[in-house]
Amino acid sequence: MSRGAEALDLPVWNTASALSWGSRRSNAMAHLDSDVKEESLREDLKFYFMNPCEKYRARHQIPWKLGLQILKILMVTTQLIRFGLSNQLVVAFKEENTVAFKYLFLKGYSGTDEDNYSCSVYNQEDAYESIFYAVNQYHRLKNISLGTVGYGENEENKIGLKVCKQHYKKGAMFPLKETLNIYSDIETDCIYLDLRALSRNSEDWKNSSFFTLEFYRLLQVKISFRLKGIDLQTILSRELPDCYVFQNTITFDNKAHSGKIKIYFDSDANIEECKGLNISGSVQKNTQYVLAFDAFVIVICLASLILCTRSIVLALRLRKRFLKFFLEKYQRHVCNADQWEFINGWYVLVIISDLMTIIGSILKMEIQVKNITNYDLCSILLGTSTLLVWVGVIRYLGYFQKYNVLILTMQASLPKVLRFCACAGMIYLGYTFCGWIVLGPYHNKDVETAGGDQSVHFIAAWDLFVGHLSSQRIIK
Amino acid sequence: MSRGAEALDLPVWNTASALSWGSRRSNAMAHLDSDVKEESLREDLKFYFMNPCEKYRARHQIPWKLGLQILKILMVTTQLIRFGLSNQLVVAFKEENTVAFKYLFLKGYSGTDEDNYSCSVYNQEDAYESIFYAVNQYHRLKNISLGTVGYGENEENKIGLKVCKQHYKKGAMFPLKETLNIYSDIETDCIYLDLRALSRNSEDWKNSSFFTLEFYRLLQVKISFRLKGIDLQTILSRELPDCYVFQNTITFDNKAHSGKIKIYFDSDANIEECKGLNISGSVQKNTQYVLAFDAFVIVICLASLILCTRSIVLALRLRKRFLKFFLEKYQRHVCNADQWEFINGWYVLVIISDLMTIIGSILKMEIQVKNITNYDLCSILLGTSTLLVWVGVIRYLGYFQKYNVLILTMQASLPKVLRFCACAGMIYLGYTFCGWIVLGPYHNKDVETAGGDQSVHFIAAWDLFVGHLSSQRIIK
Amino acid sequence: MSRGAEALDLPVWNTASALSWGSRRSNAMAHLDSDVKEESLREDLKFYFMNPCEKYRARHQIPWKLGLQILKILMVTTQLIRFGLSNQLVVAFKEENTVAFKYLFLKGYSGTDEDNYSCSVYNQEDAYESIFYAVNQYHRLKNISLGTVGYGENEENKIGLKVCKQHYKKGAMFPLKETLNIYSDIETDCIYLDLRALSRNSEDWKNSSFFTLEFYRLLQVKISFRLKGIDLQTILSRELPDCYVFQNTITFDNKAHSGKIKIYFDSDANIEECKGLNISGSVQKNTQYVLAFDAFVIVICLASLILCTRSIVLALRLRKRFLKFFLEKYQRHVCNADQWEFINGWYVLVIISDLMTIIGSILKMEIQVKNITNYDLCSILLGTSTLLVWVGVIRYLGYFQKYNVLILTMQASLPKVLRFCACAGMIYLGYTFCGWIVLGPYHNKDVETAGGDQSVHFIAAWDLFVGHLSSQRIIK
Amino acid sequence: MSRGAEALDLPVWNTASALSWGSRRSNAMAHLDSDVKEESLREDLKFYFMNPCEKYRARHQIPWKLGLQILKILMVTTQLIRFGLSNQLVVAFKEENTVAFKYLFLKGYSGTDEDNYSCSVYNQEDAYESIFYAVNQYHRLKNISLGTVGYGENEENKIGLKVCKQHYKKGAMFPLKETLNIYSDIETDCIYLDLRALSRNSEDWKNSSFFTLEFYRLLQVKISFRLKGIDLQTILSRELPDCYVFQNTITFDNKAHSGKIKIYFDSDANIEECKGLNISGSVQKNTQYVLAFDAFVIVICLASLILCTRSIVLALRLRKRFLKFFLEKYQRHVCNADQWEFINGWYVLVIISDLMTIIGSILKMEIQVKNITNYDLCSILLGTSTLLVWVGVIRYLGYFQKYNVLILTMQASLPKVLRFCACAGMIYLGYTFCGWIVLGPYHNKDVETAGGDQSVHFIAAWDLFVGHLSSQRIIK
Repeated sequence: MSRGAEALDLPVWNTASALSWGSRRSNAMAHLDSDVKEESLREDLKFYFMNPCEKYRARHQIPWKLGLQILKILMVTTQLIRFGLSNQLVVAFKEENTVAFKYLFLKGYSGTDEDNYSCSVYNQEDAYESIFYAVNQYHRLKNISLGTVGYGENEENKIGLKVCKQHYKKGAMFPLKETLNIYSDIETDCIYLDLRALSRNSEDWKNSSFFTLEFYRLLQVKISFRLKGIDLQTILSRELPDCYVFQNTITFDNKAHSGKIKIYFDSDANIEECKGLNISGSVQKNTQYVLAFDAFVIVICLASLILCTRSIVLALRLRKRFLKFFLEKYQRHVCNADQWEFINGWYVLVIISDLMTIIGSILKMEIQVKNITNYDLCSILLGTSTLLVWVGVIRYLGYFQKYNVLILTMQASLPKVLRFCACAGMIYLGYTFCGWIVLGPYHNKDVETAGGDQSVHFIAAWDLFVGHLSSQRIIK
Repeated sequence: MSRGAEALDLPVWNTASALSWGSRRSNAMAHLDSDVKEESLREDLKFYFMNPCEKYRARHQIPWKLGLQILKILMVTTQLIRFGLSNQLVVAFKEENTVAFKYLFLKGYSGTDEDNYSCSVYNQEDAYESIFYAVNQYHRLKNISLGTVGYGENEENKIGLKVCKQHYKKGAMFPLKETLNIYSDIETDCIYLDLRALSRNSEDWKNSSFFTLEFYRLLQVKISFRLKGIDLQTILSRELPDCYVFQNTITFDNKAHSGKIKIYFDSDANIEECKGLNISGSVQKNTQYVLAFDAFVIVICLASLILCTRSIVLALRLRKRFLKFFLEKYQRHVCNADQWEFINGWYVLVIISDLMTIIGSILKMEIQVKNITNYDLCSILLGTSTLLVWVGVIRYLGYFQKYNVLILTMQASLPKVLRFCACAGMIYLGYTFCGWIVLGPYHNKDVETAGGDQSVHFIAAWDLFVGHLSSQRIIK
Repeated sequence: MSRGAEALDLPVWNTASALSWGSRRSNAMAHLDSDVKEESLREDLKFYFMNPCEKYRARHQIPWKLGLQILKILMVTTQLIRFGLSNQLVVAFKEENTVAFKYLFLKGYSGTDEDNYSCSVYNQEDAYESIFYAVNQYHRLKNISLGTVGYGENEENKIGLKVCKQHYKKGAMFPLKETLNIYSDIETDCIYLDLRALSRNSEDWKNSSFFTLEFYRLLQVKISFRLKGIDLQTILSRELPDCYVFQNTITFDNKAHSGKIKIYFDSDANIEECKGLNISGSVQKNTQYVLAFDAFVIVICLASLILCTRSIVLALRLRKRFLKFFLEKYQRHVCNADQWEFINGWYVLVIISDLMTIIGSILKMEIQVKNITNYDLCSILLGTSTLLVWVGVIRYLGYFQKYNVLILTMQASLPKVLRFCACAGMIYLGYTFCGWIVLGPYHNKDVETAGGDQSVHFIAAWDLFVGHLSSQRIIK
Repeated sequence: MSRGAEALDLPVWNTASALSWGSRRSNAMAHLDSDVKEESLREDLKFYFMNPCEKYRARHQIPWKLGLQILKILMVTTQLIRFGLSNQLVVAFKEENTVAFKYLFLKGYSGTDEDNYSCSVYNQEDAYESIFYAVNQYHRLKNISLGTVGYGENEENKIGLKVCKQHYKKGAMFPLKETLNIYSDIETDCIYLDLRALSRNSEDWKNSSFFTLEFYRLLQVKISFRLKGIDLQTILSRELPDCYVFQNTITFDNKAHSGKIKIYFDSDANIEECKGLNISGSVQKNTQYVLAFDAFVIVICLASLILCTRSIVLALRLRKRFLKFFLEKYQRHVCNADQWEFINGWYVLVIISDLMTIIGSILKMEIQVKNITNYDLCSILLGTSTLLVWVGVIRYLGYFQKYNVLILTMQASLPKVLRFCACAGMIYLGYTFCGWIVLGPYHNKDVETAGGDQSVHFIAAWDLFVGHLSSQRIIK
């Protein structure tokens, strides 16, 4: 028998040999009743620690749980791929709309964001033009936009732009005396520009006193407006379309007063109920099949959940019996590590995964019938559960002896690896704090290269560590 | 004798020692006839498992096959390089034409494609201009193009553009009521613009009702036309030129309705018979030499094919004799692994490689005389066969004892490596599915970096694994 | 007892066993007094080489130093993060101003520097235009700049630009005869352009003879001016703003006479006293809390410094006692390595770190109250001390036996690693010198790729080296 | 005695023990004369295989050669750095001029080359404009160029442009019949445009029939002209300036007839004698010091060369003596490997390095006094010799025992590494040929990524190999 299998069956043989050793010694004076009980417990223990193949051979028990898990892998992965594809469409629609808005509302947008802001201006003329451009483009939106967007109503149920400027409360700059008076409290001014105001005389609003900016005390200008959009794409896959409300905000940020105004564009997309939308023709035909599939996944996961819970309950009951027997017979407690052997970690993994799949599938069905739109939570639940299900496959590999060796090796070397990471982590933490302060702000460009260097250092240290492990025969 | 050589000759010595051991035991009662037969079989077996050098030393048999293989490596590589160079010209011609078409027909093409589409527009004016620009450029083609292109006839034998637009069947957008009626079925409208229509009044066609696009229900606009071209370059290397038909399609894709129209440019280049082309002067002089070379490659490969097939047939016959003898003498079957030892895997490799080279060379000759133009299949056949031929060189390295150790080590560690990959693959699969859904759509930019990180993780895990192998002395 | 702990306690047990061995031998003839002294010394030595946990167990001594160090890590890291954030603001303000100046004063600045210069011009017209553009933008500064900048006074207390040109003293180029006379000495001409001169007639100054450049003998043109700026951003975090003087220099470098004039932009930012700045409102409220925190850090570091110094003094006294005793008893000197064991390297590390933190904190407090502005020195001191403090954490890991093994392994393999680096370094040095001369100037583009290759070579060599170490069981 | 030192001294002890073993056996019957001779030879042999430190200890011989080598390292590196800096100036001057020419003569040059050509045009109008732009810029050169360039005389001693076009001899394209007649021979037409012709009527020459290009049969247009330039930069470092003749060629390449004309710009810079250049002032002052330094380097290298040659001659003489003695005494030949031990490989390395340094230094001196201008050969000689000198340092490391182990390990594992590379190389060759043909032309973009993957594969294979070596204890 291989060493790997020995290691797995260690608790069994420990206790079993303890039993047999004990039984041999106390054989003569034992009652017949006790002997029968002991034999039955020994049989149950042996059977409990068998793997499905051995169980089948021993009692011709068909491995339902194993079959169910394999079916579950297929189902859960299929479900995840389907959901992933439709989720990707939703995310792509949001992102493409944001990019389109940037092209429409930001003057001189190059197609790629600088750092974390979209673009920047460096002189007063450009600053004014950028602000006016955004307002004008909003006004002309219907004639320029390629998407299915329309004006949305803001919190006050009005259609229009809200322009706010934030500046230090009072301030005066006297160029001759070269003095600057600043009152450090911050004031915010806002005006609303509705479509009528913009249409009446297109250049009138520009001359209002609001748009005379005193840059030396200006903190930021914020243009915010709402747009509505429809994701018609889903019609092609015979699903009902989602309606969106885009809360767009263009921020001209002059907080740094460094001569560079950074322009941020934020677009919060919320999925809302579609009002005033009539879809004729053959829509929503195949939704019911998807719902049936999801329901089937839930049923399977429930079955798996019940079977695994039952296994754990049985194991706990067996442990209780064993502990009692052991206490009666040898008058001592079973050590803690042996007690934990009764709790099969894989079952816990399966139960967690099943619970996540069930909740995720219910969310997915609700999304399908447009009751809720929480794509993010659903994707985290389904994604994580699929990850756990696939990791669980390694367990089945462990049934083959050769793979067992591999898995045991990993288990054995894990504490050493963690210890190495703790040591390296300390040095890395100190290095990061020091490097951030001493080098960080000066050499922004070299960070990437340094990253490459660090990975080389890491590999070098890691190799040394593995060499150390292997020379000590710690990895067996 | 080195351990490496022992391992290779293992079956021989196994069976041989079995024979000798058996013969010693049953010597007394054996007939003379059986002894002679046994001795002859033993000699044949010993000879069969020798390598060419040993064969030469044993029976002064000149290693024709070895010489043929070495000659074949030279020939096949030369042929591949020649074909590769001419194939590259063909591919480069197609690619350069596609790039030139993009510059000619796409307004504002920057020289590099965005993602998988060529460029994109974000407002209505740009969309109209891009469409009109493509049509106008087609009209002026003769005056602007630098290549030897002419108008090609489409399926209906007409010269001109076909513009198609696809949209939802009925639709109405009422800006005041903010409602949208969409009929989910899709309709396609097309018009043909021939050169005459374009010439008559250059701005007339733009005002047709067809070119009034309702973007809110538009799915896509497709402009398709055919162009003819000649690859005159081959005249310089004294070969007949190929004639091409380019089926160009410009697609303005608004399926997402996200405010961004993606412009795709597809150019399908087909090589067709050249009509109306007169080449005077000294062309097609050296084609015959190339054909002769290809024919010679075929002859060599045929010879190699026949010799290897013969070897395999002889080996099978020897196996039959041996099995029969073994059954007669020891009344038991030879084990499966020993039976497989008679089939030399390298010969199978050579036969596959030869067959591919022969088919590839015939294709190459047909391409040379312009009967067919299937460059792709030919390149796959010739390329793969060359790869196999070079991999076959490792076999000859195995004749040297020191290299033999290396090859045997690889053979021994291969199953461990595959097992490691299976385990890592499971985790990787789960991680990929999970990562794609949970992280994928949100952080497109970080994928590259993550790729780098993953390779570091892989190296770290791999090192640990190698350390494990080396500490177990599994790698011998 | 583990081997790790043995190694650490080696000197103790060495000397202790020497003592016990000696004492057993000379027990009979020793005086009672000597025995008591010896016993006391042995006790003290044993106690000295204990770690805090053991000390607590042995004499119930509460580990003040250990607690103090843990508190110090928290405090120092918090302080560093706070300082890092404010330092980053200062650096970002300088950098953003420099970028804004480049956009304002350099014609056709693309946003990224070429190599080490900002941009370049290739013909005479562009050269003149770039110079005039810079001067004009300086004149219009108040109307175009977005920042809080004003004109600064130069060394002569005048406001204006200083334009200098450097050229070979005499020179004549005769286009007809194709001869060139150059006098190799260098001459510098300068003019001052004050705001009045620029305002009077905006195009007048361009026609002065100074701006007729003879490019064949021109070496460089330098435009220098001063600007004042205020970093108002700090008001938001309730701190007093810093005032800056930017000494800007635009250099048109024609030294190479290669037909390419490189344009450099240098901006030296100095923090100066703010004159003529009135900040009203609630500023400088929370400065006192920060100062109190810094003071507390200083107190803690002082305490740690005193405790560690005391430990070292005690250790030196103990060593003296031990040396004297050893000399008396065995009539020989303790070997050097054992003497060094008394000096705890970690204490030295802590003392250095404490001194740096104290000086750094004092500097930080001075910066806080705007007495000095030396951010760089302060960041180096605080950063390095934090690095040392974090590295010191490894020491506490050493108290756990399993980590001890790891640390001892590192100590053992360090000399081998250094030796390997010395060898590799020699080859690398030669390769660098050779590569720089032979390949360097011709293939600038391939340097990056070569860098990648080198790291692969390094990893390959390193692996071989680690394999060597691990096969020799040198890594224990 | 360490194992490393044993290995180095192996031949000595081998032969010495052979001698002693022999001498013991034949002691009785040996003559006194023979004994003295043997003793002297043994002494000489022992001394010969000592390292400098041991020689100093044995006979107090001062290690002149060692000192000389250390001095040489310093001198040669200094010389290389000096030469490298001046060579870099020359290369930078050529490159900057080429870039400046590209900006001046190529219309729409973006600053970076596409692939191997500078830029490309895609329609007829752009093609004409690019050609006319180059000619016009040449005409206006004196007014636009920033460098010290003037018109150069071409082979016929005329100043002007030579424009050549190459096309298929006869050709006709009938747009109506869609036929194309091409005569496959190639014809070249040229015209000369001198400055007078360009000045007379600036637009006249454009209308000549030469500039009516028939693109369907055009192969290429070549514009070539000469420019003169002076590298005045060297005056700053008090050296005489170099004069250059730039042979510029602009090639409009239409050979592919793919609708894309690639524009190549070639600039061959030759250093020629400066005519008509008068430099006044203090030039060429410090040239003599540099020449003296170079002469000193030559002297040192000559000394080193002589000493090493002497050592080799002495070693050969010693070998002869030893061979003769061995033959006389034991009547057998010394094995080949032991004979080779007498030739010290390091001396050969030093001799090669010295010869290269001497030749390189002479070339450098000639360049200094402007007799020759062959910077490339000189840089290869000096660079390679410096590399060899630095590699030679490893030898001195070998004198320390610990480093010796490292070097011996490398020597031992080298054959294994080479063998591994041979095996991997075979697979790589086949893979490269196959990949180039099958994948190469289609997926140009993915080559980089594939490169990254390959390096990961390489590292994985390498690790496995090192693990194999280390598990076999082959690396000792």
